[in-house]
Amino acid sequence: MDNLKRDHGGGVDAAADAYGGVRGDWLDLSTGINPVPYPLPTIADDAWVALPDQAARDAIETAAREFWNVPETAAVLAVPGASSAIAQIPRLVQAGDVHIPGPTYNEHAASFAATGWRVTQSPGTASASVHVHPNNPDGRQCDAKDMRGALRIIDESFCDVVHDATLISEAAQPGTLILKSFGKFWGLAGLRLGFVIGDPALVERLGAMLGPWAVAGPALTIGTAALRDGDWAAATRARLQQDADRLDQLVLKKDARLVGGTSLFRLYEVADAAQWQHTLAHHHIWSRVFPYNPKWLRLGLPAPTGWDRLEAALA
Amino acid sequence: MDNLKRDHGGGVDAAADAYGGVRGDWLDLSTGINPVPYPLPTIADDAWVALPDQAARDAIETAAREFWNVPETAAVLAVPGASSAIAQIPRLVQAGDVHIPGPTYNEHAASFAATGWRVTQSPGTASASVHVHPNNPDGRQCDAKDMRGALRIIDESFCDVVHDATLISEAAQPGTLILKSFGKFWGLAGLRLGFVIGDPALVERLGAMLGPWAVAGPALTIGTAALRDGDWAAATRARLQQDADRLDQLVLKKDARLVGGTSLFRLYEVADAAQWQHTLAHHHIWSRVFPYNPKWLRLGLPAPTGWDRLEAALA
Repeated sequence: MDNLKRDHGGGVDAAADAYGGVRGDWLDLSTGINPVPYPLPTIADDAWVALPDQAARDAIETAAREFWNVPETAAVLAVPGASSAIAQIPRLVQAGDVHIPGPTYNEHAASFAATGWRVTQSPGTASASVHVHPNNPDGRQCDAKDMRGALRIIDESFCDVVHDATLISEAAQPGTLILKSFGKFWGLAGLRLGFVIGDPALVERLGAMLGPWAVAGPALTIGTAALRDGDWAAATRARLQQDADRLDQLVLKKDARLVGGTSLFRLYEVADAAQWQHTLAHHHIWSRVFPYNPKWLRLGLPAPTGWDRLEAALA
Repeated sequence: MDNLKRDHGGGVDAAADAYGGVRGDWLDLSTGINPVPYPLPTIADDAWVALPDQAARDAIETAAREFWNVPETAAVLAVPGASSAIAQIPRLVQAGDVHIPGPTYNEHAASFAATGWRVTQSPGTASASVHVHPNNPDGRQCDAKDMRGALRIIDESFCDVVHDATLISEAAQPGTLILKSFGKFWGLAGLRLGFVIGDPALVERLGAMLGPWAVAGPALTIGTAALRDGDWAAATRARLQQDADRLDQLVLKKDARLVGGTSLFRLYEVADAAQWQHTLAHHHIWSRVFPYNPKWLRLGLPAPTGWDRLEAALA
């Protein structure tokens, strides 16, 4: 049903089928997920067995409001992954033209196109716009002045590593929704947790579209603890920056140039990205290439135990 | 945005605010959730940290196919709770009239009404129909011959206690979707897991509407283990029936009549359901009443440690 091809990171199972080994043996650098996850707090039995109650949802939304310094007039909604919001957002208003400057995370364009929107690269008279800030894969930051249309989506899935750059103050503007991802910075992508922050009327409609009890009880528990833990967030930002620098040093001594990225993933220009992916895959290291640019290679950060293998593969 | 008032079980936090105590002290009989949950298996770190991979989704869908004896031509999709599917299903086809025989679980009518459908109690010329089988709250079973329209939804959220009554063979019929809930029979409602089984074209569209990685990694792990455990399911069916009989004996010796239900919840007719709810709430036991029938009281099963309190409250 999609007009646009979706390509994603992940897919280590398929890589293991092609190059051997089992999933657990692979070093997956194809995503932008922090490889040192937030330590799981104790999860009460109640979180598993009972329907998530309003109190648990209020707690996480309060924690989110404080962590991201959300404007008072903006609404906050916890959702089962930013992807669940991306899939529904195009249905919030009448379809028209949507401006999505690219290249960027392709799920936005796929979701708009699947619901009758025309995706365009020029702002023109678009009635909606999507900016990924900072952008995936090149790390480009967006300026709020560039946002067009009555529906303005700012995807801050990777903004927690550069939290001072947040456009969260825009959440107070009518027609604006800011997306936050929990899985990436906190390294718990399997949890399925994200947030939509902005125009209260749009947020309420989105919540109704997702149905009641959309977020799992354990995700509410873990997310609330993590969002209250500013110390972990600060230490993690520093560590990610060190690791990103270390990755750059390893790759750039080969025949590669840094295009951009964030401290959760780095985008390099190489002569033949497919050849790089193939070479790394022989070492059971999975990387990300892009159908629209044969020279771009994106690498996430290895876990602390993974650096030796990456260094050996790049030796 | 809803035209119909949604009322639900749960809401113990609100009950505790009104009657005292804290949530953990309350005996919540307002839902139809098995109070003896499936024991949590070991959850690998990977399930928390990585985006759920296709292999994990294939595994749970295969387990679901075998557990429910799904017709070969029907598709199976794991979803983050049956509620997530209920919220999206009305958008699968053009809005018209939908036949939802009531009273029944009100989320179906609310979801259809919110998306421009006219909800009707008479089959007439409805282009869609929803049957909850067995029905919540009265346990009524539906006959496949009564299904009308091009879109036919059978909600089997409570059918695992009477698995021989399943209408799963209807999943092979065009336009038909059968919903399964994991939270209720397996007692893990906080997990947010359910299944949509039926017409492959509709299932594929629903999957796209929910977005990629809709179900959390831990839910895939736990659900797969539980669906492969037929012994637990058989023993649980027997225990639930014994407990439902025990509940009937306690309640029916008061001035109450059994209307129906399943072995996960019992529906009683009493002179004044609100008064019963009030009396039980003074004992910090939460029950379910219905805005449309002041004589109906629904009770779920207490956990093994809860019977003494219920017996004392009903003494």
